[in-house]
Amino acid sequence: MTNKKTLAQIFPDDIRHVAGNGLLDRRLFLKSSLALSSASFIADGAHAAGTEQPARPAWMNVPGEPFTPYGRPSGFEDEVARFPSPNRQLRNNGASWTPLHKLEGMITPNGLHYERHHNGVPRINPDEHELLVHGLVERPSFFSIENLLRYPLRSQICFVECGGNSNPGWNKSPSRAEAGYFHGLVSCSEWTGVPLSTVLAETGLDKKAKWLIADGADAFAMNISIPVEKAMEDAMLALYQNGERLRPENGYPLRLLLPGWEGVLNVKWLRALKAVEKPIMARNETARYTELLPSGKARMFTFTMEAKSLITSPSAGMVLNQGPGLYQVSGLAWSGRGRVKQVDVSVDGGKSWAPAELQTPVLEKAFTRFRIPWQWNGAPSMLKSRAIDETGYVQPERQQLINERGRHGFFHYNAIVTWHVDEDGSVTHTYDTDTAQPDNNGSIDTGWD
Amino acid sequence: MTNKKTLAQIFPDDIRHVAGNGLLDRRLFLKSSLALSSASFIADGAHAAGTEQPARPAWMNVPGEPFTPYGRPSGFEDEVARFPSPNRQLRNNGASWTPLHKLEGMITPNGLHYERHHNGVPRINPDEHELLVHGLVERPSFFSIENLLRYPLRSQICFVECGGNSNPGWNKSPSRAEAGYFHGLVSCSEWTGVPLSTVLAETGLDKKAKWLIADGADAFAMNISIPVEKAMEDAMLALYQNGERLRPENGYPLRLLLPGWEGVLNVKWLRALKAVEKPIMARNETARYTELLPSGKARMFTFTMEAKSLITSPSAGMVLNQGPGLYQVSGLAWSGRGRVKQVDVSVDGGKSWAPAELQTPVLEKAFTRFRIPWQWNGAPSMLKSRAIDETGYVQPERQQLINERGRHGFFHYNAIVTWHVDEDGSVTHTYDTDTAQPDNNGSIDTGWD
Repeated sequence: MTNKKTLAQIFPDDIRHVAGNGLLDRRLFLKSSLALSSASFIADGAHAAGTEQPARPAWMNVPGEPFTPYGRPSGFEDEVARFPSPNRQLRNNGASWTPLHKLEGMITPNGLHYERHHNGVPRINPDEHELLVHGLVERPSFFSIENLLRYPLRSQICFVECGGNSNPGWNKSPSRAEAGYFHGLVSCSEWTGVPLSTVLAETGLDKKAKWLIADGADAFAMNISIPVEKAMEDAMLALYQNGERLRPENGYPLRLLLPGWEGVLNVKWLRALKAVEKPIMARNETARYTELLPSGKARMFTFTMEAKSLITSPSAGMVLNQGPGLYQVSGLAWSGRGRVKQVDVSVDGGKSWAPAELQTPVLEKAFTRFRIPWQWNGAPSMLKSRAIDETGYVQPERQQLINERGRHGFFHYNAIVTWHVDEDGSVTHTYDTDTAQPDNNGSIDTGWD
Repeated sequence: MTNKKTLAQIFPDDIRHVAGNGLLDRRLFLKSSLALSSASFIADGAHAAGTEQPARPAWMNVPGEPFTPYGRPSGFEDEVARFPSPNRQLRNNGASWTPLHKLEGMITPNGLHYERHHNGVPRINPDEHELLVHGLVERPSFFSIENLLRYPLRSQICFVECGGNSNPGWNKSPSRAEAGYFHGLVSCSEWTGVPLSTVLAETGLDKKAKWLIADGADAFAMNISIPVEKAMEDAMLALYQNGERLRPENGYPLRLLLPGWEGVLNVKWLRALKAVEKPIMARNETARYTELLPSGKARMFTFTMEAKSLITSPSAGMVLNQGPGLYQVSGLAWSGRGRVKQVDVSVDGGKSWAPAELQTPVLEKAFTRFRIPWQWNGAPSMLKSRAIDETGYVQPERQQLINERGRHGFFHYNAIVTWHVDEDGSVTHTYDTDTAQPDNNGSIDTGWD
């Protein structure tokens, strides 16, 4: 027997609608149990019981599994995994995506942090790894990992996002991928390491030095130019991720962390920093990680990841399979410029908006989880979220981004994402029709080398 | 060639000492690069380089490892593991300890969260698991995991600590275990789930209900009594841990979370909550998880974990192997009553103290990382840390705790921990001599069943 109730029962008139198409007060479930009771059995299918005990399941009749030195997820969660998208033209090059649509909260577990490799993940013996700091410094020096661990550490919870994240958004047709396999080249961890400014002070940085050339110890020999200003502001030589030492795919034993700046600058397996007067103009700051504009000119050194948000549930591939009723809209917002100030949600395609509840603490340059309850009436609906950061920057609609940047930039796509909910509850990704015209935008592979 | 310098060179007189035996201003490394430069090459052994490039390591000459759906730590980190201490008398019963001495920051990675099992870890199929809420409620109901996932979620970063954590501290001789294998029955995660108050409102809790009897779906059939006040205040039906679904050893697919209260109450593999007028007086709230006092009476229902702190580095088993010079003192503090307000550190056995720097954000009922630099002069030293929480509670010295509680309580040991640093730099656990007298305290196994 189920306790399925009518919408009227679930929502007495006294529950305030804050925007069109059934968007409800974000604090509904933080308020009195009176309000809560009025929403009885929103989880249709929860069924009534007598006073009986539940049946004793099989696993209560046998001793459980023993202790493990290092734990793993349940075997019933195997589909919660990163999705690899290897480059078609270049072996060992590509990315793997974090399943954001399967996760909750703000922390990304280390096993699911997104990956971006240019030639695979090196297996580095930390005892044989050194960081060379040289160039325009008074005391060019080698630092072992053991040396670096003696320096004062600091910790910061922040996101790292690939400049190419969400690039299918440039394509003429809406991506059919799940939210994380479209926007999941971004993850959020607690990073701990040595402030880069400390090591630069140790070696005596020359005032003439304006850039640092960072070299990775991978088989691609990744290198790129970092402005000294950022190095002195908040850059970190990261050694720990979510409490434990870095994972191999995230730069073990040492990576550069530049909070809020595009992922390619956060050089993994860091082996050298050379202080120089001018950028090196490496492949990944000229031919790649730059954006061709309609004018024919290209944007270069576009370091900061702009504010962005994404509804992770409900999202593409999901089904509101319990019919009309109350659902929770949950998603992530972040900004490379600082804190997320507000996230607006619309369930009527952008006609009306309401601010979502933000998970606290709201941290700068970190994921911010937002949530708002929605009373779905069973009609087709368009869901959107819009991030606003503390600088006042507002996440743009897709058409606005395309008007400014054209269609061939590939990188730094941060437009508002729209999910379409059909009458049957199925959720798909959609563009506003006026931007869904065919064009000649290339495949997403063109940027991955 | 090394750049090893004399203490005088490392520390010009202008660097302020804030307490005896070389404790330095906690903000030393947050200040100007001038101060930083004056501490040049604190990491003795970092060696000078010419302008040469570093030698190209072997792993740069071969393509790296491919993408992985779910990542693992580096093989070079295998010793960063939980330490199992099974009960000698009862198979499948015991605990495994988080290696706090190998970790940094405030988040515990899921693979290293401490474990406490009464009969092993059940392998539960989430599709076959239900939560029964019954007893003094208007609508006794079963909730599937799918049902619960439809409810509004909230997230909180908080610690979970076993009431038996640190129990070797009651022993007559100081434990020789590493810090985590002595104090590591505590871990800190971001937990996400449904507020218990929401589900109690759904089922219509009777005003006569004062306690909830929680049942676990493990082979021990763990059960215990929870006050309704706590359930309504901040208890959570936890479904996610650090972004992903709970790990099996932490209650997959559903556990009770009572922020700041002893671990045994945070029932794992939760299958039933029965609302009643009186506690059930289960084994784990009468014969166990109670503390025998000198008066012969026992403390019962000692729910809240009091403020505690621990220096994790340097700590037992470590060696300050680079001789006299600058070291970082780093540790963890937490309180079940709210936020940690201050952590004082002493390196002269408690004669003088100075406040450590607290990692931000400082969250209530969560790990708070503290750090302070120390100029070790090479003489034997006694290191202590002392937590003070926002209620004004001050972590007690061991003798004070023993005067109040005797020696046979086994649970809720939260005394100040003292590390002894010898001339050779080796670190060991020590008691103040006046509390190191022989007694008849039993083995730590007596509490583990």
